[in-house]
Amino acid sequence: MSPWKAAQPGDPLSRVDTPALVLDLDAFERNLQRMADAVRGSKVRLRAHAKSHKCPEIARRQLALGATGICCQKVSEAAVFVDAGVEDILITNQVVGDAKLVRLMALAKRARMGVLVDHPAQLHALASAARAAQAALDVYVEVDVGSGRCGVPPGLAAIRLAELAADSSPLRFAGLHCYHGRAQHLRTPAERAAAITYAVVAAAETRAAIEARGIPVPIVTGAGTGTFMHERDSGVFNEIQAGSYIFMDRDYADNQRSSRDIVFEHALFVRSTVMSRPSALRAVVDAGLKASSVDSGMPGIWQRPELRYLKAADEHGLIGSEQGAAPALGETLMLIPGHCDPTVNLYDELVCYRGETVEAVWPIAARGALL
Amino acid sequence: MSPWKAAQPGDPLSRVDTPALVLDLDAFERNLQRMADAVRGSKVRLRAHAKSHKCPEIARRQLALGATGICCQKVSEAAVFVDAGVEDILITNQVVGDAKLVRLMALAKRARMGVLVDHPAQLHALASAARAAQAALDVYVEVDVGSGRCGVPPGLAAIRLAELAADSSPLRFAGLHCYHGRAQHLRTPAERAAAITYAVVAAAETRAAIEARGIPVPIVTGAGTGTFMHERDSGVFNEIQAGSYIFMDRDYADNQRSSRDIVFEHALFVRSTVMSRPSALRAVVDAGLKASSVDSGMPGIWQRPELRYLKAADEHGLIGSEQGAAPALGETLMLIPGHCDPTVNLYDELVCYRGETVEAVWPIAARGALL
Repeated sequence: MSPWKAAQPGDPLSRVDTPALVLDLDAFERNLQRMADAVRGSKVRLRAHAKSHKCPEIARRQLALGATGICCQKVSEAAVFVDAGVEDILITNQVVGDAKLVRLMALAKRARMGVLVDHPAQLHALASAARAAQAALDVYVEVDVGSGRCGVPPGLAAIRLAELAADSSPLRFAGLHCYHGRAQHLRTPAERAAAITYAVVAAAETRAAIEARGIPVPIVTGAGTGTFMHERDSGVFNEIQAGSYIFMDRDYADNQRSSRDIVFEHALFVRSTVMSRPSALRAVVDAGLKASSVDSGMPGIWQRPELRYLKAADEHGLIGSEQGAAPALGETLMLIPGHCDPTVNLYDELVCYRGETVEAVWPIAARGALL
Repeated sequence: MSPWKAAQPGDPLSRVDTPALVLDLDAFERNLQRMADAVRGSKVRLRAHAKSHKCPEIARRQLALGATGICCQKVSEAAVFVDAGVEDILITNQVVGDAKLVRLMALAKRARMGVLVDHPAQLHALASAARAAQAALDVYVEVDVGSGRCGVPPGLAAIRLAELAADSSPLRFAGLHCYHGRAQHLRTPAERAAAITYAVVAAAETRAAIEARGIPVPIVTGAGTGTFMHERDSGVFNEIQAGSYIFMDRDYADNQRSSRDIVFEHALFVRSTVMSRPSALRAVVDAGLKASSVDSGMPGIWQRPELRYLKAADEHGLIGSEQGAAPALGETLMLIPGHCDPTVNLYDELVCYRGETVEAVWPIAARGALL
């Protein structure tokens, strides 16, 4: 990692070295509050997804505002949060392999842990590892409600796996995981609503069929920043897993623009500096592929509608100017990452500022926790 | 980062936890040797680009086989290599900002350092910082030889900047940086050859014009893994900066397939495990966007031509099977990253194996060194 830091608390924002991942604390805190308000009074609880931030300081704030726990995506990611004192974590993934199962069970003796299953072989391996470790664990049957990724189909296959889970002590069958990942990024509100309507019907019918066999289904969990209002109001889901709402990336904001949903603000930016300015049409910033993930497209540029981030190389970002007035050498631009999760995963620290002053530097402690 | 390691020396390859970045040492060493052979006996020296590997253990091996030094892309990246004992580093980038210049000059007192300029303001700032620190530094004028990114145009602008550099003691005008980045990834050998023919002419004419003014141009540097044979044989370039040849990613290999150039082998892989296998047509591996950068397309799959990596989410990779026989739950796949540089930058360690046994685990010490 870098042998020096981009900033220290107390530094003016203008002196933050670049590229740096920076968080506007005022916008971030408003986003936190908006989500807490959005679930308050409903029968739905928030289990905030920590894969977006990988940062214990942020998880603490989500829990303090009422989140029931967090989601993680990997066992090693969860371990970082257990070490930081988080007591209730759902790994929204299948966990396969003996080494991972041993580590998962060690975590399950220190915190309430849950995982997903979509095949009997995973259940057998989990139950065996749990017995060997004398640990208990929540398991959720993952139902494919439209993403075409992991999960068993709604209906019969889900019922059979739930029956098996309910019969796999010391595992606890905790419910259904019905996350429609693809729906989060559909462009129009109507497309997102239609996708979640299908997911809700599939979840409801599957839950009813399992309960008809005498097996309680305590939790139906899923949803993300793009669709959570629909799951919240469905009467079927009782837990939502949104994560990106705290930061808002360019892709989510593009969708938000066309909707009447709850509006979250951009709070996360990659601060960058113009290091070359070959012509009035073109400038090059010091933030490229290794500073902002481009899997969901190029970054936006904050409050500079006349500029476009055209192309990213490893450490170069090509900026074009519609009006032939590219920014000057040394000028700073605040980039809005195309996709916040993999961008955060590029940085060891988050530089948090309020107004024009750096207030804190938070470790992104689970960065690179892939195992 | 992950609280535990993917592997230890002595582990069988089959027990490496996943996803992990793994290096086939035999293939890697053959690649190192092929490049050393390719420049031996020519008047061209290799300054291997360390942005591809960010790993001092690899830089040491490149230097031991005759590389004159290394390239880095960032001041903080260079600092990691100076700390590791590398004595000659060219930062193939403009360096802008007071904090960076102070740190650059501190490095220049410990190692031979070079940087690029493409504007008089950069030269003034560098000269001033060098004087304040009583440091000396090589500067190269970056000439845009076809990439349309940084650099002054060939000819007059380059001549003026070289004159200014030659007159900016304690800076040393070291030559011309004529890297054609875009040409590295052109699909056909004929396209790459044509692009480099232009770069060679532009470099030759600019060098001749500067020397006609009595200013020596000791070095003309550039080239990458995709084109270095052309620069090597040009009679104009006397330094090449290839980096990816040690690993070879899917994108470079796709181009190599259509050429009669020197052939490098895939040595770098992301080892992944099937964690879900929803149907005979489809499996999901534990390596997604955060395990393999997709900026140059999806990963390839090593020695499994019947499989395709179809889609990447944060921590999921969707594998499709042409023949309806998706890999089994728990099976491991070796992914070939689409683009090696940003993929390496996702990992803290490189698991090095020979045959079926892990031989070493090398820190990717400059991972995340963005400043």
